[in-house]
Amino acid sequence: MNTKHNFGAGPCVLPASVLQQAANAVLNWNNLGLSILEVSHRSSDFENVISKTELLVRELLQVPDHYSILFMQGGASTQFSMLPMNFLKGRGKACYLDTGFFAQKAIREALLFGEANIVNSSADKAYSYIPEDYLVDKDAAYLHCTSNNTIEGTEMFQFPHTSIPLVCDMSSDIFSRVINVEDFDLIYAGAQKNMGPAGMTLVIVKDKFLERIDQVLPAMSDYRIFKEHGSLYNTPPVFSIYVAMLNMTWLKDQGGVTVIEQRNIEKAEMLYTEIDRNSLFYGMAQGKHRSRMNVTFSMYNQQQESSFLDFVEQYGIVGIRGYRTVGGFRASLYNALSIESVIELVKAMRDFEHIYVNLDALHVNSANNG
Amino acid sequence: MNTKHNFGAGPCVLPASVLQQAANAVLNWNNLGLSILEVSHRSSDFENVISKTELLVRELLQVPDHYSILFMQGGASTQFSMLPMNFLKGRGKACYLDTGFFAQKAIREALLFGEANIVNSSADKAYSYIPEDYLVDKDAAYLHCTSNNTIEGTEMFQFPHTSIPLVCDMSSDIFSRVINVEDFDLIYAGAQKNMGPAGMTLVIVKDKFLERIDQVLPAMSDYRIFKEHGSLYNTPPVFSIYVAMLNMTWLKDQGGVTVIEQRNIEKAEMLYTEIDRNSLFYGMAQGKHRSRMNVTFSMYNQQQESSFLDFVEQYGIVGIRGYRTVGGFRASLYNALSIESVIELVKAMRDFEHIYVNLDALHVNSANNG
Repeated sequence: MNTKHNFGAGPCVLPASVLQQAANAVLNWNNLGLSILEVSHRSSDFENVISKTELLVRELLQVPDHYSILFMQGGASTQFSMLPMNFLKGRGKACYLDTGFFAQKAIREALLFGEANIVNSSADKAYSYIPEDYLVDKDAAYLHCTSNNTIEGTEMFQFPHTSIPLVCDMSSDIFSRVINVEDFDLIYAGAQKNMGPAGMTLVIVKDKFLERIDQVLPAMSDYRIFKEHGSLYNTPPVFSIYVAMLNMTWLKDQGGVTVIEQRNIEKAEMLYTEIDRNSLFYGMAQGKHRSRMNVTFSMYNQQQESSFLDFVEQYGIVGIRGYRTVGGFRASLYNALSIESVIELVKAMRDFEHIYVNLDALHVNSANNG
Repeated sequence: MNTKHNFGAGPCVLPASVLQQAANAVLNWNNLGLSILEVSHRSSDFENVISKTELLVRELLQVPDHYSILFMQGGASTQFSMLPMNFLKGRGKACYLDTGFFAQKAIREALLFGEANIVNSSADKAYSYIPEDYLVDKDAAYLHCTSNNTIEGTEMFQFPHTSIPLVCDMSSDIFSRVINVEDFDLIYAGAQKNMGPAGMTLVIVKDKFLERIDQVLPAMSDYRIFKEHGSLYNTPPVFSIYVAMLNMTWLKDQGGVTVIEQRNIEKAEMLYTEIDRNSLFYGMAQGKHRSRMNVTFSMYNQQQESSFLDFVEQYGIVGIRGYRTVGGFRASLYNALSIESVIELVKAMRDFEHIYVNLDALHVNSANNG
């Protein structure tokens, strides 16, 4: 079984019980004498999976009836262009909040279909915070924001209230905390953080917002087609949806999003407290914008960083190397990461500090005696 | 384990040994202490998977070096629009050969980006054959064909030789028979037949053909982006690619495409022979165009069809109901379907005939005696 403390940013840790059920289903699913990988997506067995997954999304996030739930492929990167293709094209402009690497990617795709007005940006301080003041153009097709910035380690705890439709990329924090779906017109999220294995994308969209689409689009780029066909216009990513269903069932069994949010707060506080206390490390995101999902931190002495990466291996810790353009460390604390894993990382940081502080003392003593 | 005779049209039967390895990897992959569902797509372990999968494709299909191999998402349906978006838009027209349901879908998507000249169609006879005569416009951006028509049960055994680029949807027969990749400029195929689980799409494209793309496209709709990033522009469908790698390794161990082709010919001949011999059934596709992958057949007395579907259950046979718009039966004989499964279906057809012919004899006797 998975025995490591996996702090990877995604694809990421999944609950052991989910993995066990998934492995069983790969061999013989539901005692059908068939693998989950072999069943038709048109079978009643799989139709049950897709409707149960939809019901779990509705229940866990309290999605009202006038929103549709769609399962797609291609990840958030596909949504970056699909969104403006459906809603911006022919409408002049949309507004974007620029909070980091993935927000930038979304903006670049929007520019292919119209204007993308950047209402504010935290690029001035290496995306270490979430800008809070901005004016939104009332004629814009929508305002797009990114709830959690996986690479920079910042998270939005307050969402804009505007008169124009609000769209949010929630790829890396959906199901990690309570949200009010009615604040949004469209939410999208790649699966590979808190939902399930890579290969599936969730879209939650207000039906009234869909009515704004008035053009002919490629079928696989048309949100209406997915709604009309119950996400079965073509063969969906059967296994990814199935494991997402198992994972959402696990979340429900844990007590749902309210309970997991408290656990996530506890895990993040524990790690940030150690980062702030430890004399070797510092956090990269500004206090109140610090993400609970992706904790970015670094060392005052950058030359120690590779030693620390080697050092944590003996604790069974994997996946904490920072994103290549940012450096330092990133510890991702998704739902399935246990508090024991965080305790282990904190222990490793303390042990490392202990060794280095003693080494320094030794050097001082040697210097004094020399 | 999978114990049924699964004749499903896709997602379809996979080799038992592949399923066993996939299940193991879901629990603990490569003794990493991590599930294959949890590993980063940027890890060297997964990079090895993706390069090994590419090498297997090259080896099994003898793909020359001046072709690129890309792994995408979204299935053939996404390719239906991505192809004309990249190559038809701004170029006036492309040619399409209309051989059935999925060819029609490809044509509908092309019309969003330019003219789609239908060079020939077998719609006149319910798509029961592959048209062989057609004139191709020399100015067209490409000629598109469908090598195997999953729903209608026809297959192309000869491909056009033209001066314009040839593009082929090989979703349902790739890896089932020897092809000459150099005959094509672009080949695409959804994974869920002979490649692996749903959620991955293979594209084999001549590098020179890619050079024709001269416009700015959404990143996830741009073949060049996938080539440039080695299919890792964003998070790929990790598990689908991994299982495809296992499945291609299985195919290589069987002796490769040449060996599997012989086996597929044998399986198809066995079933068609019984269809032609049996007094209750008839084949739906015309002789020389009959598909080796999807055998479509029907009963002279349509009222017996539901009885036959019930009857085969006792043989452990599943997935032979015909496509909803076509009716009758469809037995899919993909690579992983064993000859034992075909023998069992033939046996079921004979037993069924035996019962009905005896019943008829009984009725005749009763009538004579009455």
